[in-house]
Amino acid sequence: MKVIFLGDIVGEPGCRFAAETLSEILPLHQPDLVIANGENATKGRGLSQKTVESLYDAGVEIVTMGNHTWDQREILRFIDSDERIVRPANYPVDTPGRGYTICKVNQRKVLIINVMGRTFLSQLDCPFNAVERILAEHSDICHVIIDMHAEVTSEKLGMGWAFAGKVSAVLGTHTHVPTADATILPGGTAYITDVGMVGPRDGILGMNRTQVIQRMRTQMPTRFEVADGANQFCAVLFELDDETGRAKHIESLNRFEPHQ
Amino acid sequence: MKVIFLGDIVGEPGCRFAAETLSEILPLHQPDLVIANGENATKGRGLSQKTVESLYDAGVEIVTMGNHTWDQREILRFIDSDERIVRPANYPVDTPGRGYTICKVNQRKVLIINVMGRTFLSQLDCPFNAVERILAEHSDICHVIIDMHAEVTSEKLGMGWAFAGKVSAVLGTHTHVPTADATILPGGTAYITDVGMVGPRDGILGMNRTQVIQRMRTQMPTRFEVADGANQFCAVLFELDDETGRAKHIESLNRFEPHQ
Amino acid sequence: MKVIFLGDIVGEPGCRFAAETLSEILPLHQPDLVIANGENATKGRGLSQKTVESLYDAGVEIVTMGNHTWDQREILRFIDSDERIVRPANYPVDTPGRGYTICKVNQRKVLIINVMGRTFLSQLDCPFNAVERILAEHSDICHVIIDMHAEVTSEKLGMGWAFAGKVSAVLGTHTHVPTADATILPGGTAYITDVGMVGPRDGILGMNRTQVIQRMRTQMPTRFEVADGANQFCAVLFELDDETGRAKHIESLNRFEPHQ
Amino acid sequence: MKVIFLGDIVGEPGCRFAAETLSEILPLHQPDLVIANGENATKGRGLSQKTVESLYDAGVEIVTMGNHTWDQREILRFIDSDERIVRPANYPVDTPGRGYTICKVNQRKVLIINVMGRTFLSQLDCPFNAVERILAEHSDICHVIIDMHAEVTSEKLGMGWAFAGKVSAVLGTHTHVPTADATILPGGTAYITDVGMVGPRDGILGMNRTQVIQRMRTQMPTRFEVADGANQFCAVLFELDDETGRAKHIESLNRFEPHQ
Ligand SMILES: [Fe+2]
Ligand SMILES: [Fe+2]
Ligand SMILES: [Fe+2]
Ligand SMILES: [Fe+2]
Ligand SMILES: [Fe+2]
Ligand SMILES: [Fe+2]
Ligand SMILES: [Fe+2]
Ligand SMILES: [Fe+2]
Repeated sequence: MKVIFLGDIVGEPGCRFAAETLSEILPLHQPDLVIANGENATKGRGLSQKTVESLYDAGVEIVTMGNHTWDQREILRFIDSDERIVRPANYPVDTPGRGYTICKVNQRKVLIINVMGRTFLSQLDCPFNAVERILAEHSDICHVIIDMHAEVTSEKLGMGWAFAGKVSAVLGTHTHVPTADATILPGGTAYITDVGMVGPRDGILGMNRTQVIQRMRTQMPTRFEVADGANQFCAVLFELDDETGRAKHIESLNRFEPHQ
Repeated sequence: MKVIFLGDIVGEPGCRFAAETLSEILPLHQPDLVIANGENATKGRGLSQKTVESLYDAGVEIVTMGNHTWDQREILRFIDSDERIVRPANYPVDTPGRGYTICKVNQRKVLIINVMGRTFLSQLDCPFNAVERILAEHSDICHVIIDMHAEVTSEKLGMGWAFAGKVSAVLGTHTHVPTADATILPGGTAYITDVGMVGPRDGILGMNRTQVIQRMRTQMPTRFEVADGANQFCAVLFELDDETGRAKHIESLNRFEPHQ
Repeated sequence: MKVIFLGDIVGEPGCRFAAETLSEILPLHQPDLVIANGENATKGRGLSQKTVESLYDAGVEIVTMGNHTWDQREILRFIDSDERIVRPANYPVDTPGRGYTICKVNQRKVLIINVMGRTFLSQLDCPFNAVERILAEHSDICHVIIDMHAEVTSEKLGMGWAFAGKVSAVLGTHTHVPTADATILPGGTAYITDVGMVGPRDGILGMNRTQVIQRMRTQMPTRFEVADGANQFCAVLFELDDETGRAKHIESLNRFEPHQ
Repeated sequence: MKVIFLGDIVGEPGCRFAAETLSEILPLHQPDLVIANGENATKGRGLSQKTVESLYDAGVEIVTMGNHTWDQREILRFIDSDERIVRPANYPVDTPGRGYTICKVNQRKVLIINVMGRTFLSQLDCPFNAVERILAEHSDICHVIIDMHAEVTSEKLGMGWAFAGKVSAVLGTHTHVPTADATILPGGTAYITDVGMVGPRDGILGMNRTQVIQRMRTQMPTRFEVADGANQFCAVLFELDDETGRAKHIESLNRFEPHQ
């Protein structure tokens, strides 16, 4: 089966550019499953009902999240009932929403897990244990895709190597910059440290660069708005063996509009 | 002029693989200047006299550093006298060594600056101010290359955009994972968020992955040793206009040996 | 001269309790100078014009700040013109407001400096260098009081010991919990690691404890409001030699209303 | 029952001063139980067999730990077999040692728990959940003493208020500075944000102050050694109702030798 995974979609420009690009590449690659990280899709922070609907309309089937999951408070109204949305699994037990979801692709069950790193990020339970527990409860499923949302490269590489040969894919998100290290780890696990971002490329992480640089230089609070101008589309395409769940191929599908 | 910049070289395997790869690609690309980040070159932490000599022998002409600058204490014996070594410029005023160096390439002065980000890293002076001050003191030099050693993508992008059109190149280091966003920013500044690492690819940041994962999972102290096995070579090649110092081209020169 | 210094005043209850308590103890102690940290005085975050006026009315003469300096945006309208307000001196050069102020007490100039620690707090210039620079510019002044606003005890103790015998007092703020280590360091420097807070004692750092605990346990964003119920008043009283500026005495003036 | 709890004992001077002071105050207060935090007892980092024996000889009956638990590697040889040593309970499941211990005092079982905060400290499981789980497994025990080892005041206050009325005492450790907020929280829980340190008072957190300040100012690695000179003894004495486990009284027992 072929899967396309889009990195963090940022704001309305990111949603629009995701939709445009998907309309071009879906016919081309004909993936069996499209997943996207949506933690920044609404105004750069969180995910509203309206935004997630627009992602579904664009062809996204599963939406993963991260540290910005709760920034649009209205998500509490639909995260429990929408099985297509996955928030980090290592939040405490009673957290709204779900840490993984299962969908049927080519008659196979596919388990999609979202976990969050802890270094410089959030005070959650161990992401390694969280994944292990979910895998143990679903030992019948051999197609497992992990969105590892984390700040530092070491923790993502750690997740990749810890589950190399045990899951189909470990895909990093959160830093909004695509890495150039897509690979198949020994045992058949598709891996990339960060898929990157879909959204305004001439900003900083998709936000207005003047505002961000001002905060860095003054250390005073400034408001951040989603940038405009040129966009980038960052995603990976990978293929899993339908029988074994092992990854056979992974490649980056990155597009950058020219700077303006 | 053509410049090759190697990301963080890790340990003896990294030095060896850097030398081997340079011996192949130097004749091919015939760069006018070769720079490398050497903060992890000795046992993964710091830079000894012997190691830096081996880098010079391999064709490296300038060595930049980072948060591991002082890990091999013997560097204090030679960092003041060796003008080819540059440590972050935003250390306090009386810090040993220098924050920038100037070399002659094709009859042009080239100013090479090393600065360090502060987010989740070190408590240093403002890297933006540090660069601005150095530029002001050297306004006659139009070829300026910055190694921005930082943890987070935002701070590196901030440095790139803040000095877009004012310097020749802003090249990120420290995360040991190459990014796929090499570009020429408006105004002619070559930019990449992270050049990546030269060293063992089947480790985590070049260190033994079993040890690193053990620490992540147990949260107990473990010793980290440089990994062995397959290597990666991550570098960028960029070309600057000899007259104006503006970047005309940048590309990644990444090689990954197959996983073992 | 006798000085009373109040720790971080939190919200409207803190302002009210500060006023009430000062009205009792000012006649008793008859201090020559009253200073208070006001970074949380307006709704727990920042300082409005109206709030600072109420502090002046209560007898406060100088107001120091911290990481919450800018939380009430209106402070930008009056911080430049009001010489009684001091924000951390190690902000960048062009930051609004001033990092120190000088007032006349008993015919002596008193220099009051506010600096901020960097560990786990803010990315500012070195607080030690900031103090040294201000002292060098005012070597004629022998009465110097430092509000060291910092998260960790080590950095506050570092400031105390680094300037022991060189300034009259180093008083820590920010953690909102009074410490029991008030002392005269060798050379005559009054020191305390944290003066503590003036405000609701049955909250957490003055904020509604249910909300704070909820965030700690869920790791989801929650709004924090200033707590109500019993209050605490935390301040220090210290006495400086009018001739030499050396501290002769320091004691805590802490009052806790019974829990409700 | 009367309990004395000593804050972090630092190095050989701390052990010696603890022994001397206990030999004076044990006859005076005649406590039924003596507990001490020993995470820094050996050379400022960790706890050796020899050191812990010396603490037992001095009258300490239970030793709690913290982020420095593993710094003396030999602790792995005896932490499993010595029931008097308690390390943070929110380490992963298979961690050596125990997160709580039970001892008999006046014919009553006393449950002593050590937990660690996560903010700016360690990536552990939720300390609130850890305590809740242990309490649920020991609902027959009404005398429960918690050593909350944490960096920030908010997390310690959070632990105190979250379990106010549910445990006998919540005592903070780690910052090495005693706080002045010992109190009985509603429901009968003895509380203090930080008990403080036993050890060299003229250092910084018990370590040589020149070395610590040098690192703060240069941001270069320096070795830290245990300080010498004057000592401090910081402890709390509290009394629990033998029947109900509710705290009736708490007071600080702090002694500071004059600065030298
Ligand atoms: Fe994101
Ligand atoms: Fe994120
Ligand atoms: Fe490095
Ligand atoms: Fe580094
Ligand atoms: Fe503060
Ligand atoms: Fe405050
Ligand atoms: Fe400690
Ligand atoms: Fe500690």
